[in-house]
Amino acid sequence: MTFRPLHDRLLVRRIEAEDKTAGGIIIPDTAKEKPQEGEVIAAGAGLKAEDGTVTPLDVKAGDRILFGKWSGTEVKIDGEDLIIMKESDVFGIIG
Amino acid sequence: MTFRPLHDRLLVRRIEAEDKTAGGIIIPDTAKEKPQEGEVIAAGAGLKAEDGTVTPLDVKAGDRILFGKWSGTEVKIDGEDLIIMKESDVFGIIG
Amino acid sequence: MTFRPLHDRLLVRRIEAEDKTAGGIIIPDTAKEKPQEGEVIAAGAGLKAEDGTVTPLDVKAGDRILFGKWSGTEVKIDGEDLIIMKESDVFGIIG
Amino acid sequence: MTFRPLHDRLLVRRIEAEDKTAGGIIIPDTAKEKPQEGEVIAAGAGLKAEDGTVTPLDVKAGDRILFGKWSGTEVKIDGEDLIIMKESDVFGIIG
Amino acid sequence: MTFRPLHDRLLVRRIEAEDKTAGGIIIPDTAKEKPQEGEVIAAGAGLKAEDGTVTPLDVKAGDRILFGKWSGTEVKIDGEDLIIMKESDVFGIIG
Amino acid sequence: MTFRPLHDRLLVRRIEAEDKTAGGIIIPDTAKEKPQEGEVIAAGAGLKAEDGTVTPLDVKAGDRILFGKWSGTEVKIDGEDLIIMKESDVFGIIG
Amino acid sequence: MTFRPLHDRLLVRRIEAEDKTAGGIIIPDTAKEKPQEGEVIAAGAGLKAEDGTVTPLDVKAGDRILFGKWSGTEVKIDGEDLIIMKESDVFGIIG
Repeated sequence: MTFRPLHDRLLVRRIEAEDKTAGGIIIPDTAKEKPQEGEVIAAGAGLKAEDGTVTPLDVKAGDRILFGKWSGTEVKIDGEDLIIMKESDVFGIIG
Repeated sequence: MTFRPLHDRLLVRRIEAEDKTAGGIIIPDTAKEKPQEGEVIAAGAGLKAEDGTVTPLDVKAGDRILFGKWSGTEVKIDGEDLIIMKESDVFGIIG
Repeated sequence: MTFRPLHDRLLVRRIEAEDKTAGGIIIPDTAKEKPQEGEVIAAGAGLKAEDGTVTPLDVKAGDRILFGKWSGTEVKIDGEDLIIMKESDVFGIIG
Repeated sequence: MTFRPLHDRLLVRRIEAEDKTAGGIIIPDTAKEKPQEGEVIAAGAGLKAEDGTVTPLDVKAGDRILFGKWSGTEVKIDGEDLIIMKESDVFGIIG
Repeated sequence: MTFRPLHDRLLVRRIEAEDKTAGGIIIPDTAKEKPQEGEVIAAGAGLKAEDGTVTPLDVKAGDRILFGKWSGTEVKIDGEDLIIMKESDVFGIIG
Repeated sequence: MTFRPLHDRLLVRRIEAEDKTAGGIIIPDTAKEKPQEGEVIAAGAGLKAEDGTVTPLDVKAGDRILFGKWSGTEVKIDGEDLIIMKESDVFGIIG
Repeated sequence: MTFRPLHDRLLVRRIEAEDKTAGGIIIPDTAKEKPQEGEVIAAGAGLKAEDGTVTPLDVKAGDRILFGKWSGTEVKIDGEDLIIMKESDVFGIIG
């Protein structure tokens, strides 16, 4: 089942702190306002200017990202808990 | 009876969690702030820039969408409960 | 006595829920935040951009519209209770 | 004694509900948030855009207008109580 | 000692209600939110747009103005109490 | 040790009310919201527009300025208490 | 492990007040709202305008900066506590 985020939105799978890979960012203390890590599943086509021109996003499917702890909205798609957020919620790209 | 939403507004029929189709998005727990699923019945002509140029919407009649739980305003048209919302309330398009 | 709304304003006569016509939108329960129905009596010339160009409105005299319950300001003209609102208060056009 | 309102401001004389002329708008119940009627005494040259170009106002001296009850600031000029407001406070022009 | 207000600011000497001249605007009741009268001592060069172009002000040194009661900041220059305000605080020019 | 303020920021040394020079602005009563006097130590290159063009500031190193009492942030550089503020905090230039 | 900040964000290592170098800025009293000192580890590509053009930042990797005490979000990368902030949080560049 496909889900196409609209405009500047992203569909993101959260990467839990424990199952960090070798190049891992270790963020053990999730209590504090630490940023979260995730993988981009799908990205919107980009932001639309008033005259209709679309500016592609700098974040794309497959990117590993850091984002603000309280960013976005949780959604369950095909039984999996994912997050929908905006590109402006993303701090940066890992690796 | 036709209803033409103005500018960037959409007329949407809510798809209740239970009657999900095969490609279904299962959002059993409607208590939490889970996004809602719906079908677009009618879409406005698009956003008008200050100079009058109109930019068509990316969401059209027939699209199945995910939108924020508290988005839009309820309206009853020909006895049916529908919702009027803006395109900016839409997270993305399903399928 | 004529009244010309300024810029993007509209003069609207409210259509009470009971006296709905055949193509009627039935909004029996006015207690909830249901949108209101009305008829446009007069419309402004349009929104003025910073450089003075005027963009005509998409709503015109004679249109039947749906608008937000708390939109606009009540005014009595020639003894009749009417409402002055902005085009941005209008959800869409009926019929 | 002359008073030139600046930019998009208007100097307005309030027309009390009782002394309404034949073409009158009767707004007996001033307790509620009913709009007020008035006559424009003087109007500013217009709004100045960032690049300095001035866009003339659509309201001019002599116009009879409807404006929001709490709009503007009261001022006494040559012993007469008048109001200074912005064009954006004006609902429309009567007659 | 000279003081050059920056950009769209004005240096203003307050004209107290009592010492009004013949062409006077009499604002006896300073308790209410009545506008204040003053004389412009010095005016800034004008507002700077994002691209650096400067748009001269419409208010200049020597103008008698009406401004909002709570506008600006009081300053003492060479022992005299004056006010620094922005052009947007000015209602209009007298005489 | 040099410190280059960024964009539209200024590094300012506060001139205390007592040690005012001959051409002095005497602001004895620092209790009230009186503006403060200071000397600009360093100024940023200017404000950057969305397209990257930089508009130089109108305030430069060496200028004596008046600024709002609560403007800016205190910083200690080489043991001296200074203030970092934005050009928009400056009322005007003295002398 | 690399981390590329997005758009106008910066990855910054905080320089504690004690371990200040010779050209040091001594900010002993961290209790007050004193600005913080740090070193830029990585900088985003720049701010994106509505039409997609990117304006490079004025702060780059290796710069020593002063920034507001409460700016940015703490993150742990490869076991080191760092901060992600925006260029607009930076007061200026040292040295």
